Amino acid sequence: MNVAVLGSGIVGRTLAQKIASLGHHATIGTRDVGALMARHEKGPMGQAPFAEWHAQHDAVVVAKFAEAAASSEFVFNATNGAGTLEALHLAGAENLNGKLLIDVSNPLDFSKGFPPTLLLVNTDSLGEQIQRSFPDVRVVKSLNTVSANVMVAPGDLADGDHHIFVGGNDAVAKEEVSGLLREWFGWRNIIDLGDITTARGTEMYLALWIRLASSIGFRPLNIRVVM
Amino acid sequence: MNVAVLGSGIVGRTLAQKIASLGHHATIGTRDVGALMARHEKGPMGQAPFAEWHAQHDAVVVAKFAEAAASSEFVFNATNGAGTLEALHLAGAENLNGKLLIDVSNPLDFSKGFPPTLLLVNTDSLGEQIQRSFPDVRVVKSLNTVSANVMVAPGDLADGDHHIFVGGNDAVAKEEVSGLLREWFGWRNIIDLGDITTARGTEMYLALWIRLASSIGFRPLNIRVVM
Repeated sequence: MNVAVLGSGIVGRTLAQKIASLGHHATIGTRDVGALMARHEKGPMGQAPFAEWHAQHDAVVVAKFAEAAASSEFVFNATNGAGTLEALHLAGAENLNGKLLIDVSNPLDFSKGFPPTLLLVNTDSLGEQIQRSFPDVRVVKSLNTVSANVMVAPGDLADGDHHIFVGGNDAVAKEEVSGLLREWFGWRNIIDLGDITTARGTEMYLALWIRLASSIGFRPLNIRVVM
Repeated sequence: MNVAVLGSGIVGRTLAQKIASLGHHATIGTRDVGALMARHEKGPMGQAPFAEWHAQHDAVVVAKFAEAAASSEFVFNATNGAGTLEALHLAGAENLNGKLLIDVSNPLDFSKGFPPTLLLVNTDSLGEQIQRSFPDVRVVKSLNTVSANVMVAPGDLADGDHHIFVGGNDAVAKEEVSGLLREWFGWRNIIDLGDITTARGTEMYLALWIRLASSIGFRPLNIRVVM
């Protein structure tokens, strides 16, 4: 399959690397390939400069947002939540319409320090904003409740005995995403929360997640729903 | 011990009943005892009129907010989040100061239908608002992430293999609350999230909880933190 991963941070790299390792064609989409490759400083989370990472993962193609989206059957949104809409407009509705878009981002605002707050909250969410802005894209919110390493390898944490959520307006799209989560990453426990407004729930959970993560030194964590 | 439970809804009744069953002196605090006893209609969640409930649980004393608080060593806030500050002002700082107050409420706003939104969110929380308004009260946020039946009987759900959180500025108060949660209700897994600002996390989690609860027909549920 041809998969676009929009965003070149830790989440985008981790997804693209895993998808490429499965034999698929993974393209990281970014605003300006030349600028990304020329960057020499470490990222805000201490990650290696992109070119350094890419030298070791050259099965992953790097392209402009629009090219990545145009060449792919479906798309992960792993951009910074604050810049997601702009990135998707650069990708272009004409390159996204009709496609499945898995929105794994959160609208986190770190500008006032730790803990971050949410740019959209309570009566709106990033997932809804994307679906409203691109009504012909099949948006599914998922994976945004865990860190990148857990997204692609849930079995490495407590033998995978924990949950991931999907939310979206298109039932078939949610089924397709659930299949990918199982087959590509090994997720066993997937809960369909309902329509895209349920993205409010998974995004607002970040306020608890960040305190939990902080209290255990940012080791991998997730939740198991007990019922 | 003498325990005040402010609030006469399902949460207040469940807590008071359990605490009285342990041999403690439990007083439900309310605005107007006569009016509460005279009410004949069912509550918004279908619960029996208070007097009908109380006839079967007469070990629980009923008193005005101020009397309940004055006569007790510590206090549960189980009032409706939208009316909590007013209820606590009626209880009176002079009757609350120096005491442990376990805030189990959430600032839910059902006025715009389902799902409810939060009246305080993102940069504030009910727990913080209480602590700011009553700086000499030892506020601990806890139990607000589960329904009343799970609060007092965690062992009835998945053998108690799930988590509850405490948050507050007073480390000793959090230890005392953790002890009560263990001894009175049987909680085995308690996570101290940090100071009272962590109430934002547990209150915002309600946006996920309500969608989870809705998707499984409002059966008892909780989360186990996996790490």
